[in-house]
Amino acid sequence: MDKYAPIGVFDSGVGGLTVAREIMKQMPNERVVYFGDTARVPYGSKSKETVTRFSWQIVRFLQEQQVKAIVIACNTASAIALPEIEGEIDIPIIGVVKPGAKAASSSTRNGKIGVIATDATIHSKIYSRYIKDMRPGADILGKACPLFVPLVEEGLIEDPVTDEIARRYLSELIETGIDTLIMGCTHYPLLRKTLQKTMGDDVVLVDPAYETAKECRQMLADMNLLNDTEPQLGDNPYRFFVSDEADKFKNIANTILPYGILGAKKIDIDEY
Amino acid sequence: MDKYAPIGVFDSGVGGLTVAREIMKQMPNERVVYFGDTARVPYGSKSKETVTRFSWQIVRFLQEQQVKAIVIACNTASAIALPEIEGEIDIPIIGVVKPGAKAASSSTRNGKIGVIATDATIHSKIYSRYIKDMRPGADILGKACPLFVPLVEEGLIEDPVTDEIARRYLSELIETGIDTLIMGCTHYPLLRKTLQKTMGDDVVLVDPAYETAKECRQMLADMNLLNDTEPQLGDNPYRFFVSDEADKFKNIANTILPYGILGAKKIDIDEY
Repeated sequence: MDKYAPIGVFDSGVGGLTVAREIMKQMPNERVVYFGDTARVPYGSKSKETVTRFSWQIVRFLQEQQVKAIVIACNTASAIALPEIEGEIDIPIIGVVKPGAKAASSSTRNGKIGVIATDATIHSKIYSRYIKDMRPGADILGKACPLFVPLVEEGLIEDPVTDEIARRYLSELIETGIDTLIMGCTHYPLLRKTLQKTMGDDVVLVDPAYETAKECRQMLADMNLLNDTEPQLGDNPYRFFVSDEADKFKNIANTILPYGILGAKKIDIDEY
Repeated sequence: MDKYAPIGVFDSGVGGLTVAREIMKQMPNERVVYFGDTARVPYGSKSKETVTRFSWQIVRFLQEQQVKAIVIACNTASAIALPEIEGEIDIPIIGVVKPGAKAASSSTRNGKIGVIATDATIHSKIYSRYIKDMRPGADILGKACPLFVPLVEEGLIEDPVTDEIARRYLSELIETGIDTLIMGCTHYPLLRKTLQKTMGDDVVLVDPAYETAKECRQMLADMNLLNDTEPQLGDNPYRFFVSDEADKFKNIANTILPYGILGAKKIDIDEY
């Protein structure tokens, strides 16, 4: 395996750029190839079979790009497709679910952990499974919050409507006395202020993006696959691919990433 | 052309079933083949190129089903893909935009018409184009309402949050004094009560589903393609296809359609 090869990162759309951003921050020597499935976004309301098929196509595309490892930045794909894929490919692959579960397991004091995510992620019960491995006896309470992504995308980040929807979604979690809440969808950390206000200051909010980049770094270090060479002047260490229009993606990416990106390339993901 | 052949109807998902329902009601002799692109829904935030590519795949699938005519039940696909497709196939094809535009043009008294729809439909300006052909000098005011579909899908049909969002989206339309409002997305008629309350009783709400079925009937009659034979006992006049899980679709379809549907079949639309 070539330690100078890029890390492949993928998501159903733009949300996974928050994970890519953490990887760039924590591992500034690494090259990254990002794929956003903007033509078929969102995944969170779709079936396991469909999300797994889409994820396989993207994994095949990233393998063609000769990546040394793959990070699934999408919670839904991590929850419902990763368990099948990880057994069948020969490069390391991690998702955002296990690192988030691990951080929550060590953060909780009372053993009561809430998970907010898409329908598909909640129904998979995968956060429960991982947390119970690491912290037997923990109580895990899941709640699907399908309006959070459209509210973020409509720009209602801090707004009375978002406050009201957050109160409705979170009230049952508050009543059960959780002390830790996993923000199990890449868009949710953008609502951190609203979530913290609604849950109260004593509840710890876990952001899987940060935990995943940390985990990825550790995994590459253990396998002696960390890149020890800084990108050279004139190198372009970050490449972006999408399934829908590249320009629209570029504009959104430039609001999320710390570096301006020069462009993205549209590819036909159906062919993989 | 075989007048006993079915009518093909398609949508990005389940919303187009409201159009299929009108077709079944207004033309009880007709067979219908419905396709819902549930694996790639929604279309309203995607590019013209992608929506056109998806629509072509579905048109090819419906042609393989030997349909005598195609109804695009999706406003977005009608707005941005139909103009290209209608010039290139040899069976009649209509969308929901032109019939809706026609109904609004004849309903308005003051010539001020509002259109609410997805981002893609509003940006296409296609409602304006059609209305100005039929009623030169009309003022057309478009407003994208991206939160309406998720609100409907979350079941907040009559809810203070939906009232508040409707007030925000519609206030500029109210200020301009429109007397007619086109509900330019298949989900919006489900919000009819909220929309009517927000706009006031004097504003006429146009439902393109109803107008499209009427237009389709007229078109088939003009071409001598109306089916004059009632379905026989044991016939199955309605067939449903989807790109994601069939069971989930069946459950939703059974809340929208007046008849119970026995099943839907999942097909691989990428292969068309």
